[in-house]
Amino acid sequence: MKKFLHILVLLAAALTLTACGNLKNSDLANNAKTSNTKTKTYQTTDTGNNGYTVLLKNGHYVTSPIAGLTATGNDNSVDTREIERGLVQISKGVYSTNSYVFQEGQYISAATANDWLARKSKSNPSGLNPEQGEKKHYKPFYLEEILEQDYLTGSGSNYHIGGISIGLAMNSIDYYQKTTGGPEYQEQISRTAQTTAGQTAAEQIVMRLRQRKALKKIPITIGLFSKTSKDSLVGGTYFLSGTAAANSSKITKWKSISAQAEVLPTVGNKKAINSSDASSFNSFKESIQNYFPNISGVTAILRYENGKLSQENISITTQFYGYEQVQSFTRLVLSTAKKYLANDVPIEIKIGSVNDIQALVAKETGDSSYQVHIYGGE
Amino acid sequence: MKKFLHILVLLAAALTLTACGNLKNSDLANNAKTSNTKTKTYQTTDTGNNGYTVLLKNGHYVTSPIAGLTATGNDNSVDTREIERGLVQISKGVYSTNSYVFQEGQYISAATANDWLARKSKSNPSGLNPEQGEKKHYKPFYLEEILEQDYLTGSGSNYHIGGISIGLAMNSIDYYQKTTGGPEYQEQISRTAQTTAGQTAAEQIVMRLRQRKALKKIPITIGLFSKTSKDSLVGGTYFLSGTAAANSSKITKWKSISAQAEVLPTVGNKKAINSSDASSFNSFKESIQNYFPNISGVTAILRYENGKLSQENISITTQFYGYEQVQSFTRLVLSTAKKYLANDVPIEIKIGSVNDIQALVAKETGDSSYQVHIYGGE
Repeated sequence: MKKFLHILVLLAAALTLTACGNLKNSDLANNAKTSNTKTKTYQTTDTGNNGYTVLLKNGHYVTSPIAGLTATGNDNSVDTREIERGLVQISKGVYSTNSYVFQEGQYISAATANDWLARKSKSNPSGLNPEQGEKKHYKPFYLEEILEQDYLTGSGSNYHIGGISIGLAMNSIDYYQKTTGGPEYQEQISRTAQTTAGQTAAEQIVMRLRQRKALKKIPITIGLFSKTSKDSLVGGTYFLSGTAAANSSKITKWKSISAQAEVLPTVGNKKAINSSDASSFNSFKESIQNYFPNISGVTAILRYENGKLSQENISITTQFYGYEQVQSFTRLVLSTAKKYLANDVPIEIKIGSVNDIQALVAKETGDSSYQVHIYGGE
Repeated sequence: MKKFLHILVLLAAALTLTACGNLKNSDLANNAKTSNTKTKTYQTTDTGNNGYTVLLKNGHYVTSPIAGLTATGNDNSVDTREIERGLVQISKGVYSTNSYVFQEGQYISAATANDWLARKSKSNPSGLNPEQGEKKHYKPFYLEEILEQDYLTGSGSNYHIGGISIGLAMNSIDYYQKTTGGPEYQEQISRTAQTTAGQTAAEQIVMRLRQRKALKKIPITIGLFSKTSKDSLVGGTYFLSGTAAANSSKITKWKSISAQAEVLPTVGNKKAINSSDASSFNSFKESIQNYFPNISGVTAILRYENGKLSQENISITTQFYGYEQVQSFTRLVLSTAKKYLANDVPIEIKIGSVNDIQALVAKETGDSSYQVHIYGGE
């Protein structure tokens, strides 16, 4: 993670926004380059199915200087991806993908984010995590990560900021040590506590962003995300979102988000979110294990939105990699998927041996058909 | 590899062919099962684009007991896959995919293969590698692996062997030690020496298989494969093939196979097989590295048949995994591939970060269009 941050910081330094002279818009596919090396140019790149067009700067993808910063080092890769993906989904409801283009956040600097993520104290009055003070009872870090996404409008040679989205990743468990190098303790944080701390931090952040001239008159959208435990196989979800309208410094209405995710098969006595989806998965799993006994694992991650299955990602680990065996197994997976799995949901089935991926069976959207790819060619 | 072999041996033991009573054919998609557990049933599974249908036995894929056995332990996974894939390609020219179904080899046992792969000696007269004797000069192991593939004909409830293919993997380098635990030496083996040793072993094997009642009157096809060095990134290729016609114990005509493979970019002063393909790849590589500087590696494996590019597999390693960054990078790869890479060749582009695969851009055949998949869903 440190290496990743290091690279991000270097990149951010190299790509910091500066005032631009003669701006030029060109579609990436045209691969247009300006002959005057002193001018800065924008390009855009399409992101496919209902996604945002992404703004490139001088031909480069622009990263945010605060991506990956944490308050206590509590990160896992499944959360990281969901924090970003979920905020894009929330933003789609506010900033139309037809009118706005996406850029990773450029307004909150790494130094600012580090101050905000730290505890409030005399030396750090802008800290958004609670002051520990002299009190005996440990006060947890509620706010773990801040993510900024910028949504720009414009056309031709001129793009300007049109809206901003901020994701606040709230711990559901705060991991801490009482003494350096001592044992690790866990503090559970309730949804109520996450909500209170998250809404308070959101108000502060909106007020602070309004001080910036460029951000005075644009909508600011905030999403509150609940992080999972360190060892979770499935990322957390956003649970609340709200928008401060242009000119306003308040989020007047918070909207709850009903999103859930689970791993199948469930562990112990844990009940599946939807027993019918779980039973379809079990039929799929048993059927392929009947034909190819040499399979060491079949697991699935299911995501639900508003109580309805929205994505199913299945991972199959085999102990073989023979050419015809992989070919025929993949075809079996395809026919079994068609037989048992949901028809109207995007599905990804990743077939891998211990160290390498072997094949993919996937449907990209609910109403598309399956595509099959066997790695290494036929 | 040992674990893999162990599993294969267990499987083979469980699945050894026995005389079958009431045979029943059913398409796998129908998922038919017999209620009489004493009878054996066959099922078949389609293997897609111009491939063989695979015969399953009692619902299970049947593996060969000799897959993965080696004379000196000189194996690498890129060779292993090509030995199998290449023999399927050779077999397609002899056993039509419309009339024959595929099964991994069931006639040569592990004990037999181990004897054949060992040196000839008084105690092992059937050894196909040269006797070392008392002579001072080291005699290399030429034959490293034997692969058997069975091609069956039949329909309804009855399948029987219709042809057999044997792949002989010949070392291009024999690695050996003069004393146990001592330094490793290498003996280079010329193509001429591979050919002589391979053709001699092939004649022996055909004569021996003809002793078996079931194999007296079927074609036997032999392919000679040249293995690469232990640390090669790209598998070896078949260089000769021949068929002993039904009833004949001789391969009267050997056909040379013109197949090559290379890794791009080339190392040192090594010339690419085809400079135009190499320059297309370089343009592709430079173009995406211009837009996304944070890419640590872009390499390709190109396969040629009869001097013509037949498959290009590109691997891109990134140091990022942000959601929108992967999305937009994948779209850029797609448009860049369309611009620079061959139109009429199957292409696979695997996009991965250090430990995990992120996305796939691939066209399955020369005349199909690209498909795109981003792992984890949109």
